[in-house]
Amino acid sequence: MFETAEIGHKLSKERYKREEPKLRQALLEAQYQLLEKGKFPVLLIVSGVEGAGKGETVNLFNEWMDPRHLRAFAFGKPGPADKGRPVMWRYWQALPPKGKIGIFFGSWYTDAIVDRTRGKTGKAAFGRELDRIRRLERMLSAEGVLVVKLWFHITKPQMKKRLKKLGSSKLTAWRATANEWKYYKDYDKFRDISEDAVRETSTGAAPWHVIEGYDPQYRSLTAGRILLSAMKHRLEGEMPTLPSPAPPATPPLDGHNILKSLDYAAKLTRPQYDKKLDALQAELAYAMRSKAMRDRGVCAVFEGMDAAGKGSTIRRITRALDARYYRVIPVAAPTEEERAQPYLWRFWRNVPQPGHTTIFDRSWYGRVLVERVEGFATQFAWMRAYQEINEFEAEMAESGILVVKFWMAVTPEEQLKRFKQRKEIAYKRYKITAEDWRNRKQWPKYEQAVCDMIERTSTDMAPWNLIAANDKLHARVEVLERLVQAIKRA
Amino acid sequence: MFETAEIGHKLSKERYKREEPKLRQALLEAQYQLLEKGKFPVLLIVSGVEGAGKGETVNLFNEWMDPRHLRAFAFGKPGPADKGRPVMWRYWQALPPKGKIGIFFGSWYTDAIVDRTRGKTGKAAFGRELDRIRRLERMLSAEGVLVVKLWFHITKPQMKKRLKKLGSSKLTAWRATANEWKYYKDYDKFRDISEDAVRETSTGAAPWHVIEGYDPQYRSLTAGRILLSAMKHRLEGEMPTLPSPAPPATPPLDGHNILKSLDYAAKLTRPQYDKKLDALQAELAYAMRSKAMRDRGVCAVFEGMDAAGKGSTIRRITRALDARYYRVIPVAAPTEEERAQPYLWRFWRNVPQPGHTTIFDRSWYGRVLVERVEGFATQFAWMRAYQEINEFEAEMAESGILVVKFWMAVTPEEQLKRFKQRKEIAYKRYKITAEDWRNRKQWPKYEQAVCDMIERTSTDMAPWNLIAANDKLHARVEVLERLVQAIKRA
Repeated sequence: MFETAEIGHKLSKERYKREEPKLRQALLEAQYQLLEKGKFPVLLIVSGVEGAGKGETVNLFNEWMDPRHLRAFAFGKPGPADKGRPVMWRYWQALPPKGKIGIFFGSWYTDAIVDRTRGKTGKAAFGRELDRIRRLERMLSAEGVLVVKLWFHITKPQMKKRLKKLGSSKLTAWRATANEWKYYKDYDKFRDISEDAVRETSTGAAPWHVIEGYDPQYRSLTAGRILLSAMKHRLEGEMPTLPSPAPPATPPLDGHNILKSLDYAAKLTRPQYDKKLDALQAELAYAMRSKAMRDRGVCAVFEGMDAAGKGSTIRRITRALDARYYRVIPVAAPTEEERAQPYLWRFWRNVPQPGHTTIFDRSWYGRVLVERVEGFATQFAWMRAYQEINEFEAEMAESGILVVKFWMAVTPEEQLKRFKQRKEIAYKRYKITAEDWRNRKQWPKYEQAVCDMIERTSTDMAPWNLIAANDKLHARVEVLERLVQAIKRA
Repeated sequence: MFETAEIGHKLSKERYKREEPKLRQALLEAQYQLLEKGKFPVLLIVSGVEGAGKGETVNLFNEWMDPRHLRAFAFGKPGPADKGRPVMWRYWQALPPKGKIGIFFGSWYTDAIVDRTRGKTGKAAFGRELDRIRRLERMLSAEGVLVVKLWFHITKPQMKKRLKKLGSSKLTAWRATANEWKYYKDYDKFRDISEDAVRETSTGAAPWHVIEGYDPQYRSLTAGRILLSAMKHRLEGEMPTLPSPAPPATPPLDGHNILKSLDYAAKLTRPQYDKKLDALQAELAYAMRSKAMRDRGVCAVFEGMDAAGKGSTIRRITRALDARYYRVIPVAAPTEEERAQPYLWRFWRNVPQPGHTTIFDRSWYGRVLVERVEGFATQFAWMRAYQEINEFEAEMAESGILVVKFWMAVTPEEQLKRFKQRKEIAYKRYKITAEDWRNRKQWPKYEQAVCDMIERTSTDMAPWNLIAANDKLHARVEVLERLVQAIKRA
């Protein structure tokens, strides 16, 4: 794979001087066009052999383009803020929004390859890592991110020559560190493993470009031209069509479904409720403050039809929590900033840190519920979302976060009763809008979307808890019970 | 995941009698429309719990639709013909062509899940298996195959009830075998593992549909409706657009490339050649007949510009082989039968069996060479082909097949000389056509395509051997040398 970058490509300095200003101008123009159109972000991943000119190239890009609309991130080893967070969390925080260019210098590839080279991970774990990367990049591409990946390569003798040259002058000796020599020692292994990584992650949607890195003139102009051509190609807006996926499940023939199978008659009297609630809140408070939970985040998700009682149930939970360690995130239509990012981005931002709890009042499931039903997302987008969501939750679970999901289920009759009540009680009136009535008309479509969602996203590590919520008291107690159970199991 | 199929769906027999004829008619109509339009094949995968009605449903489909255009394959354990062949080989043989419906009863899922349930494979191997399946299905979908996956589910008590019922009558007791009871014993494990498999392979392009299988009326109509709606949806021809991938690499700035770096001056005199050829053919003959090669297939691929000497080199190889055990496959434009299948299908057909050699005179690389340059394949198609090809070759290598690839490189000047010679010598004239002259004009484009191909598909398990072929004698000897080396290493 790397043979084509070991043949001694080079360019004269004169040629570089002649071509560099033209390339620079073209890149700048493409950058402004990107900014004006604002249709997609560019993610440039810079990786490769130590000393093959990665850093120099990143610096050049910074110099060539308008730094206000370009941001380079140099990722090292995960820091304290990344502890207990999913592996991909810090990269999500750095994703460029539409119209902007983000450069990842060091990226999801670095850790995977270096850990494997140093024997910290086995072959199977490495394979899983590459699979995770492929899925993430596929999703980013499908969301419209232009992913451009540059791999800078030099040979082992070139690496040695460079280190010796650096070491021979006082001015540059600091750059030929013991660590750099360690990379030299590991060269062959690194080359093998990188070759696997580059091959396995060179997908049609996000291919690698391998650049011979020894000659600075050749390397710089080549890197610039690849970025330029990728941007121009996308700006010109060619969109391939895909064969359409099979459509979603049709509603079951007998009209029966899992929501209808719940026991909506379940009820609690006020005295029963008061007694149980007090006991459960105490239990929850103790469980959350236990030693086992100190280093773990909790991510609780509440979904349900309008007026199902999500808000009031959440309040019964938060009363048992320490205000310093929890946040409730009400999820409405995305903001402008959020719309400039892949749809999961706004949830990645709010992934709890260790020892903290995030409660989502509505969540990423909007993609397969309201966005599906209202047609805000294409079928292609919401069909692939089930798997993307499962992967997002798996990433959280892997990093030790407890994911607990509740569907608050009410019958259409009960919803109507509550809507009417809200209209009548002055201080509740703000809670009922024309939109609620519109949504209500779509009940069968929502119901189907909910059943599909439960079927496709109820997983071992994050199962759906279906709560019959026609009786609010019963529902609150059951949610608390399930939450306490989940924490105790974890 | 399976909770939604454990709620007791059922339909009355009256309703079934009323709806079955309508469904049947609609399915038949869709089948004929599929046949007439002939734009895509339908692959129906039927899997699930033992006794949940898989076989019955397959029989029904056979009854409902026109059996001339539908074919069901029941895959059991791999048989003798599958030995030493890649795992996916037998499935490729059974893929339906455009316009037809193929039903896989037992499929790539069965082995993966059963082996894992019985502890024959570990977690990591199972994960790799699912990844392989995902990639295959993604490729099939991208090639236009409509993949519909039905999972039939029953609960453990339902399974027991069924087995007891079967056992209680002499007429049906033969169906409640020890093997079936073994499935019952393994139910919980099977359910866990299946749930993982279904979740991880429920992609946007090829989602699973889970069907509650206990009630025959509900099960049959539901399965039929899912297939019908999938077919109608695709027949109506909705095609989602995808953000465009980054474009291919631009040719290197300094005009240098790996083809130009070969030593085209290498030459052999006739006496040198004769001596070496004899020795190498003998060596090859012995090596191919060695014990180590008895159970291994060899797949040799020859690619090169027109008139590079592929044919004459292949003849020097086949002279050393036993005619019973080798085949040369000349690859030209695909036949009608081949065009009705994914592009790799015609090569899967010719994967060598153990102890046999297949020599491809041109190959699957046409996708990223002529099809790319001439625009027969879209950019989306050839960009993803690199990875698909690497995976195809990896599948062969994994099953023990030795994959050896040669690029016969000539300079444009040498090609011109040979073209002119061919024109002049009567018995060679048939070898030179207007097309050859047309291709020659595209030399720079082909050269770029070849360099990209080498960069992206030269892998550890199947590296490209680049042969400077301006001197035919030198080229033949070098090919034989490399081939003998590759066999000796293997």
